[in-house]
Amino acid sequence: MRLTLLGTGDAAGMPVYGCHCERCVMARENPDYRRGPTSALLEIDDKRYLIDAGLMDIADRFPAPTLDGIFLTHFHPDHVQGLFHLRWGRGNKIPVYCPTDNTGFADLLKHPGVLDFQVLRKYEPLNIGELTITPVPLIHSKPTFGYLFEKEGHQIAYLVDTKDIPPRVEEFLREKQLETVIIDTCSPPGVENRNHNNLDDTLSLHQRIGAKKTIMTHIQHDFDLWLTDNCDSLPETVIPGYDGYIAYYR
Amino acid sequence: MRLTLLGTGDAAGMPVYGCHCERCVMARENPDYRRGPTSALLEIDDKRYLIDAGLMDIADRFPAPTLDGIFLTHFHPDHVQGLFHLRWGRGNKIPVYCPTDNTGFADLLKHPGVLDFQVLRKYEPLNIGELTITPVPLIHSKPTFGYLFEKEGHQIAYLVDTKDIPPRVEEFLREKQLETVIIDTCSPPGVENRNHNNLDDTLSLHQRIGAKKTIMTHIQHDFDLWLTDNCDSLPETVIPGYDGYIAYYR
Repeated sequence: MRLTLLGTGDAAGMPVYGCHCERCVMARENPDYRRGPTSALLEIDDKRYLIDAGLMDIADRFPAPTLDGIFLTHFHPDHVQGLFHLRWGRGNKIPVYCPTDNTGFADLLKHPGVLDFQVLRKYEPLNIGELTITPVPLIHSKPTFGYLFEKEGHQIAYLVDTKDIPPRVEEFLREKQLETVIIDTCSPPGVENRNHNNLDDTLSLHQRIGAKKTIMTHIQHDFDLWLTDNCDSLPETVIPGYDGYIAYYR
Repeated sequence: MRLTLLGTGDAAGMPVYGCHCERCVMARENPDYRRGPTSALLEIDDKRYLIDAGLMDIADRFPAPTLDGIFLTHFHPDHVQGLFHLRWGRGNKIPVYCPTDNTGFADLLKHPGVLDFQVLRKYEPLNIGELTITPVPLIHSKPTFGYLFEKEGHQIAYLVDTKDIPPRVEEFLREKQLETVIIDTCSPPGVENRNHNNLDDTLSLHQRIGAKKTIMTHIQHDFDLWLTDNCDSLPETVIPGYDGYIAYYR
């Protein structure tokens, strides 16, 4: 099992359009510093699943039929905007697992094309081959699922977008003895955002969930600036993600 | 004055995801055959205006502050989806001229960020320096404007998306003795679509409007296939557009 972070930025992305801060200038000069819309790829044997679909070039990166499914955390634009192009494709339907959301995003649910939206229920596991996926509710401005992926003793939780997590989810995940948590960490310590974690929230959750490793994603430009000067102050087990970060689970 | 067609495809784009027809295979192998979301760039002296914003890489192609305004024809995803990234930018507001549309697209009007949406009224000209822009109503499934751009005796009409045009618009444009019409031509002759012209519609409009040159855009994959075999049968003054097509007006 292999997990690749395809994007680790927020809705504004890195560089931020029109921003001339040190970090945005770096990101314009060197693609290594860019951050695309937060999303990931989970590969299991010959199967490939996207987690969120905000990338603008999904069709080119994953030509049909190389994509076996998409797990949507929620229907905000930076998590679904890449689906508009895919939907009018040809061939097999692509399963798109998602939370219940009556409004969805624009006309995606009304005109799904080849996208086969399948609503999941919180805590009700879905089994695909040897992979078990359990959606858990998060705390965000739209109905949002985190996902627990389990296969052969490996447990990965993907918790995006969220401000803290509900107590029941915390307990559920703690009992799983997670290998990796990938988590929304939008802002530097002390900067409050009612829809996203800051570093304080994430450090607290890292302790409370007790995962071996916590990887931060959905990183906003001001947190990226903070990291430039303060990255060394982080615990070794709390890591800022980057676009292209790969974790193997064998 | 210089007009560049940035995209000449429909919502599915060319290649169509998962399609293995001759034309889609060609487009995957050779970028010259690709078609992005229908959109254009109008350059006048040192000013640059986008016509529609469906391109996914607007921020990279037009770094701030190189964009002086955006003319939206309507709020369908393939015409506005590129704005989601721009809106959270820094710096000067970007004027986005558009028709009245109560629903707009997703939360764009509610959370415009640096986008300064300015509603225009049909037939009421807007003057920006020596450029005069007149919005005209089109016939589509959402409120849609075509735009007449006039500068120093040069007249260009951009008519996307539309099925035919209202009689008053036809009369209005005929009197202008247009140099160029860029027009939605989605489908091959005989293929009906209630929201888009087919080639029959466009050939008729070319006659009725009496423009010196008609350039077709919003070309769907089946029309592209038709063009592969039948391009020579078109009148010399009716031209299939392509991404990167440039017209100069001096």
